[in-house]
Amino acid sequence: MGIKEDALRLHEEWKGKLSIDSKVPVKNKYDLSVAYTPGVAEPCRMIHKNREDVYKYTGKGNTVAVVTDGSAVLGLGDIGPEAALPVMEGKAVLFKEFGGVDAFPICIPSKDVEVIINTVKMIEPVFGGINLEDIASPRCAEIERRLKEEMDIPVFHDDQHGTAVVVTAALINALKVVGKKWEDVTVAMSGAGAAGSAIIKMLLNVGVKDIIACSSKGILCGGETYSNWVHQEIADMTNKNRIKGTLADAMKGADIFIGVSAPGIVTGEMVHSMAEDAIVLPMANPDPEIDPELALKAGARVVGTGRSDYPNQINNVLAFPGIFRGALDARASDINEAMKVAAAEAIAGLIRAEELSADYIIVPAFDPQVGKAVAKAVHQAAVDSGVARLL
Amino acid sequence: MGIKEDALRLHEEWKGKLSIDSKVPVKNKYDLSVAYTPGVAEPCRMIHKNREDVYKYTGKGNTVAVVTDGSAVLGLGDIGPEAALPVMEGKAVLFKEFGGVDAFPICIPSKDVEVIINTVKMIEPVFGGINLEDIASPRCAEIERRLKEEMDIPVFHDDQHGTAVVVTAALINALKVVGKKWEDVTVAMSGAGAAGSAIIKMLLNVGVKDIIACSSKGILCGGETYSNWVHQEIADMTNKNRIKGTLADAMKGADIFIGVSAPGIVTGEMVHSMAEDAIVLPMANPDPEIDPELALKAGARVVGTGRSDYPNQINNVLAFPGIFRGALDARASDINEAMKVAAAEAIAGLIRAEELSADYIIVPAFDPQVGKAVAKAVHQAAVDSGVARLL
Repeated sequence: MGIKEDALRLHEEWKGKLSIDSKVPVKNKYDLSVAYTPGVAEPCRMIHKNREDVYKYTGKGNTVAVVTDGSAVLGLGDIGPEAALPVMEGKAVLFKEFGGVDAFPICIPSKDVEVIINTVKMIEPVFGGINLEDIASPRCAEIERRLKEEMDIPVFHDDQHGTAVVVTAALINALKVVGKKWEDVTVAMSGAGAAGSAIIKMLLNVGVKDIIACSSKGILCGGETYSNWVHQEIADMTNKNRIKGTLADAMKGADIFIGVSAPGIVTGEMVHSMAEDAIVLPMANPDPEIDPELALKAGARVVGTGRSDYPNQINNVLAFPGIFRGALDARASDINEAMKVAAAEAIAGLIRAEELSADYIIVPAFDPQVGKAVAKAVHQAAVDSGVARLL
Repeated sequence: MGIKEDALRLHEEWKGKLSIDSKVPVKNKYDLSVAYTPGVAEPCRMIHKNREDVYKYTGKGNTVAVVTDGSAVLGLGDIGPEAALPVMEGKAVLFKEFGGVDAFPICIPSKDVEVIINTVKMIEPVFGGINLEDIASPRCAEIERRLKEEMDIPVFHDDQHGTAVVVTAALINALKVVGKKWEDVTVAMSGAGAAGSAIIKMLLNVGVKDIIACSSKGILCGGETYSNWVHQEIADMTNKNRIKGTLADAMKGADIFIGVSAPGIVTGEMVHSMAEDAIVLPMANPDPEIDPELALKAGARVVGTGRSDYPNQINNVLAFPGIFRGALDARASDINEAMKVAAAEAIAGLIRAEELSADYIIVPAFDPQVGKAVAKAVHQAAVDSGVARLL
């Protein structure tokens, strides 16, 4: 396939995927006098009197920063802020296309947590929300926690929470297909970084009782000491029976496998060792932890990956545009657990009971109804959970 | 007139004057696979290998930050970063309409010079240029000087240099109308802030020998000590005869008056005391230092103001879109004196000798040929002065 060559050629032709355009006419003196001087002084005066009026007279309420330090970009790793820009532009394109959100890339040439936090706080006035993107773990979690505490606008690390929302949505439907319940299943997880940690927290929040998570060094286990604080946090909240061993040990008898780790590390035998009607979501990019067809052959009942060329694509674009749309519409001060669960349920609910099957647990990325359905549910959840400033 | 009411109503309707749009299609799997994953990894890899390729594969080379701290906005003063946003959005609209430049507002909630400098440096990767805007003097000059030194992309404080360029353009033509030369005229100047200082430097650069500048406390004079370092700098480079006194004293016998100060501070008598064929540019906003009709009655030969309802509007929009267009097209590392002089000459040159008159020394703000003419001249000057990275 010529995707690589096409992408390179087209990026050179485009020279940027974003255009910043005027929404207002500037064709004569009158236009200029209302959009710029002297008329523009009036909204300025109003906002100076009441700072909240910045939402009334400017684009702040519809504008999101896509912030990265370029340290964990796609599967490419630490490629730096300039090399991350094509991804951030692409993300901004998706924000607009699927959520109607004006998103702008901010690529920071520093990996210092304090510098990143201060920079984001120093550009807050023009943004209604912050989407953190492709920042290495565990730094990303610290940055997100601090910014959520220190800023009034919603902050969301998509690699963590967007992934968690879409995985949860897929599992809601997969569990219906196999006839199991959250509280009865055991989950084996490969990948203990930012995404893994967020998925674990969300699954515990929706009622899963038993998760065994593995880093590249094996099962994480309470009672042990880990230098990576995200690993420590995961160890302390999972693995209730304090099982030790490898990923193969974690998967034995498990009802669900979730992979956010590395290509090809799961074998057919490992899938075969899982419980009946196993749900297998190997989501490593660009190549999954196990080939989906191999997983099915090994006995998995439901398989979903990050790839668009197989059924059940677990794609973040199903979540983040609608989540921000809903949060901005509610002028939410936060994107909280209730809003994320509402988003997952809205995505899952787009497939009617009679349509549901092992090959169709999640709607395609281009389904035009997704963004609006997610936005509506998230807006309502913001109101119900008390973080909305607009009802 | 209902400009104020219209501006307020329209700003509320618009809720922001900018839209960030996708330049690329995202309608199917193929589109997504080239604009986003997996294809986007290719331009990322290329930029990681060679950082300069960020200009080849992203919008950096056409994107400018409009940066303010909200401390000197229009005639409103220190109204804060949120209240400054409608002006910055308007500026971005003008950048696009008149220069084809994608401009994005950055409003910083700090007046600390180091914080502002660090914030701008920490967002450099996505921008091809920095336009500083409405930052109080003398802080703005320090910020500009430091950023020019410490960044590889062009930095331009429009309130200073944009104004200086358009004033110089107007004076090139006004001098032709009255038949005087740069080296023979004396200039009286009211306003010793950022704009005043930049105008003085530019006029000295093009050959003016004698400038007498006034702050609100009177004539600035070498040998005196001033707490404001911009005043000190001006005092040390002007007023060769060390004249002391008031603005009225400065204007006696002067060939040119330039006002970037406060409304109504110049009387008919003061204009009357000037030399024959006086050129009077009272540019205080929204109301000039002297009513233009009064200035003409008092004997001025050529009058220009910032207002669009009189002839000879000195409007920055004639300069900054084309200056940045030219600098970006040349991938210039700086916007230097040669480029500013080239811009002034290009603007002045748009009026043919036979069209020139006391009422027509500068083209109107909406003249569609201005941006391109300025861009071309600035691009060439960047090449000739050795700051261009593209020829």
